[in-house]
Amino acid sequence: MNKQELVELIKRKGSFLCVGLDTDPDKLPEHLGKDAEAVYEFNRAIIETTLPFAAAYKLNIAFYEALGVKGWEVLERTIQLIPKGEALIIADAKRGDIGNTAARYGKAFFETFDCDAITVNPYMGEDSVTPFLDYKDKWSIVLGLTSNKGAQDVELLKLEDGRYVFEAVIDRVAQLGTTENLMFVVGATQTEYLEKVRKIIPEHFLLVPGVGAQGGKLQDLQPLMHPTSIGLLVNSSRQIIYASSKGDFAERAGEEAAALQAQMQAMLA
Amino acid sequence: MNKQELVELIKRKGSFLCVGLDTDPDKLPEHLGKDAEAVYEFNRAIIETTLPFAAAYKLNIAFYEALGVKGWEVLERTIQLIPKGEALIIADAKRGDIGNTAARYGKAFFETFDCDAITVNPYMGEDSVTPFLDYKDKWSIVLGLTSNKGAQDVELLKLEDGRYVFEAVIDRVAQLGTTENLMFVVGATQTEYLEKVRKIIPEHFLLVPGVGAQGGKLQDLQPLMHPTSIGLLVNSSRQIIYASSKGDFAERAGEEAAALQAQMQAMLA
Repeated sequence: MNKQELVELIKRKGSFLCVGLDTDPDKLPEHLGKDAEAVYEFNRAIIETTLPFAAAYKLNIAFYEALGVKGWEVLERTIQLIPKGEALIIADAKRGDIGNTAARYGKAFFETFDCDAITVNPYMGEDSVTPFLDYKDKWSIVLGLTSNKGAQDVELLKLEDGRYVFEAVIDRVAQLGTTENLMFVVGATQTEYLEKVRKIIPEHFLLVPGVGAQGGKLQDLQPLMHPTSIGLLVNSSRQIIYASSKGDFAERAGEEAAALQAQMQAMLA
Repeated sequence: MNKQELVELIKRKGSFLCVGLDTDPDKLPEHLGKDAEAVYEFNRAIIETTLPFAAAYKLNIAFYEALGVKGWEVLERTIQLIPKGEALIIADAKRGDIGNTAARYGKAFFETFDCDAITVNPYMGEDSVTPFLDYKDKWSIVLGLTSNKGAQDVELLKLEDGRYVFEAVIDRVAQLGTTENLMFVVGATQTEYLEKVRKIIPEHFLLVPGVGAQGGKLQDLQPLMHPTSIGLLVNSSRQIIYASSKGDFAERAGEEAAALQAQMQAMLA
């Protein structure tokens, strides 16, 4: 999915919502069971009710990997449930390695699993990012400033030139690609730093987790939006997919997604 | 495998060699074919000839992931080929994510696939590392300073306190665990910085890639060794596993591993 298609999709749905499929077997409604097949059934139902309100789905790869070989089967089949072009499919894998290895991760998620985007960890620098950028109409979503406590340990260290590490990272990585193949992860709880991010990359899409369960407010993100190309995807996982632990879980997930979509439509107007 | 067992294993084999199973279907001897089963057969033969000389095997997860569901089956079966306790089994996965997700990656590699160690990316800080440390007799091998060109983009940035980013990372992460559950990745080509690393962590095991094909020299690593607990694992991938592309590939891999083991035995004396 290229940038024009993504922007059109967001405008058509009136939503820049990314639904996070961090599907945890221990949190499924009891009647579904706890095995890999239950994860698939859960995802199927959630996608069915949320698709009209979602611009993207983010599959948290760790949750599938933990289930072993069966988890990868479920991941593959879940991806096939999302109609191509109807939502950006993000592999939240946070991969990052030297060039020849990063290329293999690119093959895994862009070819074998046919995702539209992958999250990338920039710690190892240029050659850990560029192999992902060689794919046409695919996206690399690089960690900038995350919303977790540990962000202060590395991302928020101050450099001798006065910048934070995350600023240097975003600045350097932005030189490797374009607004057509690069996005950045920026946590919604890091409001005091969001302005700094937009100074470095005024136009790039940002993938913002941390709204809802993690404490960030959707309306606070309005200043991050780009007037024509929007430039924002907001992820919500737990608030949507675990809205109910009963038989109405999918229906309630759809309602939560619809409520977020309504707020987003107002922000897009 | 705990530290005492690892040190005894190294002394018994006279080797701190880690054989990297970065098995690339396009580089297999022709007679094996190029599919997932060929990767398994290749690994089986390599493990058979190199096991007497190897203290560890490092499975580069990207190469298996790129093969999709079948790749994960091959990964699982390859791990089962390595007799428990006869070599440290390292999942070179470079995972890193917020706490609840890192815990899933821990489950994947320490429980589902029963590896002894996993490589971890520290960009997201404390809570991306600690879930791995909760496992008894398992190891987290955290990226410190890598041997690739991109190391200069983040790891080698200078902080306002005069340290490099990688020094701050190693210092911070070392506080989260012990020499019994934490190792660090330090590239062999970064010789000028190796002394700085040992000042911060005089005793931790270092996993050193970059010897051989990437240009590092084994003897240069002698100063990194700890007098009683050794503290060093040196990885070689391509030099060993692709020593020959013919029918004698496994025999030649064994010879390369034996040659490195002989050098290591001298360094251990």
